[in-house]
Amino acid sequence: MSLYSFPKSNKLFERAAARIPGGIPGHQSPALTVPGAFPYFAERAQGCRYWDVDGNEFIDFMCGYGPIVLGYNHPKVEAAAAAQRERGFCFNHPSERTVELAEKLCDIIPIADWAVFARNGSDITTWSLQVAREHTQRNKVIMARGAYHGTHAWCTPGHGGLTMEDTNNVLMFTWNNADEIRDLIIKNDKDVAAIILTPYHHPAFGDSVLPAPGFYQAVRSICDEYGIVMIIDDVRAGFRLNMGGSSEYFGGKADMICYSKAIANGYTLSAGVGRKELKNAAGRVFFTGSFWSSPVELAASLATIDEMLATNAIDKMLRMGKMLQDGLKQRGEAHGLQVSVTGPPSIPNMTFANETNFRRMQRFSAECSLRGVFFHPHHNWFISAAHEEADIKKGLDIADEAFAIVKKEFGS
Amino acid sequence: MSLYSFPKSNKLFERAAARIPGGIPGHQSPALTVPGAFPYFAERAQGCRYWDVDGNEFIDFMCGYGPIVLGYNHPKVEAAAAAQRERGFCFNHPSERTVELAEKLCDIIPIADWAVFARNGSDITTWSLQVAREHTQRNKVIMARGAYHGTHAWCTPGHGGLTMEDTNNVLMFTWNNADEIRDLIIKNDKDVAAIILTPYHHPAFGDSVLPAPGFYQAVRSICDEYGIVMIIDDVRAGFRLNMGGSSEYFGGKADMICYSKAIANGYTLSAGVGRKELKNAAGRVFFTGSFWSSPVELAASLATIDEMLATNAIDKMLRMGKMLQDGLKQRGEAHGLQVSVTGPPSIPNMTFANETNFRRMQRFSAECSLRGVFFHPHHNWFISAAHEEADIKKGLDIADEAFAIVKKEFGS
Repeated sequence: MSLYSFPKSNKLFERAAARIPGGIPGHQSPALTVPGAFPYFAERAQGCRYWDVDGNEFIDFMCGYGPIVLGYNHPKVEAAAAAQRERGFCFNHPSERTVELAEKLCDIIPIADWAVFARNGSDITTWSLQVAREHTQRNKVIMARGAYHGTHAWCTPGHGGLTMEDTNNVLMFTWNNADEIRDLIIKNDKDVAAIILTPYHHPAFGDSVLPAPGFYQAVRSICDEYGIVMIIDDVRAGFRLNMGGSSEYFGGKADMICYSKAIANGYTLSAGVGRKELKNAAGRVFFTGSFWSSPVELAASLATIDEMLATNAIDKMLRMGKMLQDGLKQRGEAHGLQVSVTGPPSIPNMTFANETNFRRMQRFSAECSLRGVFFHPHHNWFISAAHEEADIKKGLDIADEAFAIVKKEFGS
Repeated sequence: MSLYSFPKSNKLFERAAARIPGGIPGHQSPALTVPGAFPYFAERAQGCRYWDVDGNEFIDFMCGYGPIVLGYNHPKVEAAAAAQRERGFCFNHPSERTVELAEKLCDIIPIADWAVFARNGSDITTWSLQVAREHTQRNKVIMARGAYHGTHAWCTPGHGGLTMEDTNNVLMFTWNNADEIRDLIIKNDKDVAAIILTPYHHPAFGDSVLPAPGFYQAVRSICDEYGIVMIIDDVRAGFRLNMGGSSEYFGGKADMICYSKAIANGYTLSAGVGRKELKNAAGRVFFTGSFWSSPVELAASLATIDEMLATNAIDKMLRMGKMLQDGLKQRGEAHGLQVSVTGPPSIPNMTFANETNFRRMQRFSAECSLRGVFFHPHHNWFISAAHEEADIKKGLDIADEAFAIVKKEFGS
C-alpha cells in the first residue's frame, strides 16, 4: 500500500489557523503528535476505526483520547441517547435520568454513596477539592508532580495567564513516595484538605508508573490519621480497569472519585461520587452549569454502563490490551529495539527505553500513522471493547514495519 | 381547570435527595423557585412548551435557563445534529465543523477575528481572564458587584470550599459607575488586566439594569487609556439581542466576548471570540477538554445561527417579549399592583416594586406555575422564537389570575 498523505487536512488547518488561536488548540494540537505525519481533521468513525478528511482509514488506538470505550457509534448507546433526545433535553429541571444514573453509580462503585454530574473532567477535579476544603475547613491540596488533573489554573500544565495565587495552595510530591506526602503535611501545619491522585501515574511524554506495593495503603493511612480527603482522579482511567473505580483495580479505597471521558462512550459528561461523610459538604459547594442536568448524555451513560456490565467489556479490553502490549514488546525486541511498554493493558503506553529526545517514538508513531494505525507518540493509548484480535494483529503488523524503519534509522 | 399537583416530582425528589447532595443542586434547586408550587423533574418538551413527570404542561418562559432559543426540538437544528452524529463524534481530531463555526462567528460578530470552543460558560469566562492576563502581563480583574460570571472560585455566588486566594485578584465596582472603575485602577497601581461585564446587569433576586447612557463608552475609553482588555460575558444574553453580540445592541465594543447557552439551541457548547490583537495571547493559554472539538454540538450551532439569521429570530423574540412585558405591566397595574418589568424584551425580568421580601413575587409565580406557565420568581426569564402571540396571550391571561390572587392577599 502507498503511504497516506493529508492534503485536505493541511488545507483545512490553514483555514483553522486563520480563525482559531493555535489553529488546533489543546491536546489535539498537531505539535503534540508529529506534524505532517498525522491527520489533523476527522470525518467519520465506526467501531474501532475512523476516517480523516482525506479519506484515510485508521485503526484507532486513542479512542478520542479515552471517551470511546465501546467503539464509535455503538448501537445500544445511540438508541438510548436517541430515545431521550426525541423527548427533549436541556429542560428547566433535571429528568429522571439524573436520579437513575446517580443510583447506578452508587450501585456499581463501592465507595459511592452519592453522585453529582457536570460536563468536563476539570469541573469535577476542581470541585472535589472545594468539597474537601469545605469538609475539612482547610486550604491546601497535595498532588503528584507531573500528574494531569485538567486545565484549571491550580493544575494546568500550561504557563499562560496565571497568577501567583493560583498554585499557592497546591503542594507537590513525587509519585509513590508516601513519606514525602507526610513531610508536606507536617511542614504545612496539617492545613491539608485533600490528596488528589490519578489511580496510577500517567504523565505525558513518559512511562506510566503503577502504584508501588503498599503505596495506596500508606496514603489511605495518612489520610485517616490527619483527616484528609483522598480523591482519585479517574477521568482518564475510569471504566477501563474496574467498574467500581480504578482504585479498586489497584486495591485502594478513595473518599471521592472523579469521572469523565469513558462514562458515556463519547457523550459530554463528567461525574463525581463520594462517601456519605462528604455529602453535606458537597451540598454546600455551589456547583452548576447551563447544561449539567441535560438528559441525553445521562441516558447514553446509563446504556454504556449497562452494556459494559452485560458484556464484561473491561475484561475484553484488558485481554486485547495485553495482546497489544505483549506483541509490541516481542516485535520490538525481535528488531533489537528497547521497547518499554507500561501502564495497565487497556491503557497502554509505549516509549523507547534508550532515548530521551523522543525521536524514535516520533518516527515509530509517524510510520504507523502513515500506514493507518494511530499510536500517539507522547500520550498513553486507549483500547475499546470494539477492538478485536484482528485489529490488534493488524496494528502489530504495521508496528512491525515501523520498528524496522526505526531500527534502520537509529540502529538500536 | 384544576391546579397542578406534583406527586411524581416529589417522589422522584426523595430518590434524588438520597443519592445527590442537595437532591437537585445548582440553579435548578427547588429552593430557588417556590418549593411545592413548581415541578422538580421534566419529562419532555416541544417548541415553547414542556411537560413535567406528572404530565403537567407548561408554557415555558425559562427556555432551559436560556439555551433554548428556537424552541425545543427544532427540526433544522436536530437534522443538522443528526447528520453529524451519524458520521461520528468525539474523534481524535477536530472536524471541519470547528473551522466552519469559527468562520461563521467571525462573519457575524463585528469584533471577532478568532474563536475558541469549550463546553461551559464558566470555561470561557475564566479563560478570557487568563488571556487578558497573558496579553497585559497584569493580574487583577474588575467585575460588577452582584454580576454572575459562572461558578468558578473567583466569581461563584456560593461560599463553600473557597480559599482567601480565590478572590485576591478580583476587584468589584457598582454597575454603571465608571468613576469607581477608574478609582480601582489607580488604587491598584494599574495592575488591571481585564474589565469583565455582562452586557447589561442581570442580578438574581433583583431588577435588571440596562447600561446607562455613556457607560459603555466610558468603560471603552478607560480600557483604551490603561491598556485593559474589555470582556463582555454574553453567556446569558447572547443571541437574544443582536447576532453580533449583545454589546452591539447597546452600542458597545468589546475586546473579547464569551458565549454559551443559546449558541446551539440547547446543545452543550460555549465559545469565546476576540480581536486579533489578543490572538497570540489566546494561543498561549493552554485550554482544552476531552469533548471540546466534538462536532455534533458545533453542527447544531451552525444550524441554529443560520436559522436565526434566515428568520430574523431576534426581531421576533424582541416583539414577543415586548408584548409580554407591556401586558404584564398593564394587567398588574389594572389590579393596582406595582409591577416592575425590567430587562430587554427578549430577556424580561419582573419584580414587585413595593416589596423587599419576595413574597408577592413568589405567590405570583407559584400561582402561574400551578396553572401551567413557568415564570421564575427570582431570575430573569427568556423568550424563544417558538413563542407565538397566542402563547404570550395565554401567559398573560394566567398572569392575570395570579395578579388577582396577589392583590387579594397583599392588598397592593
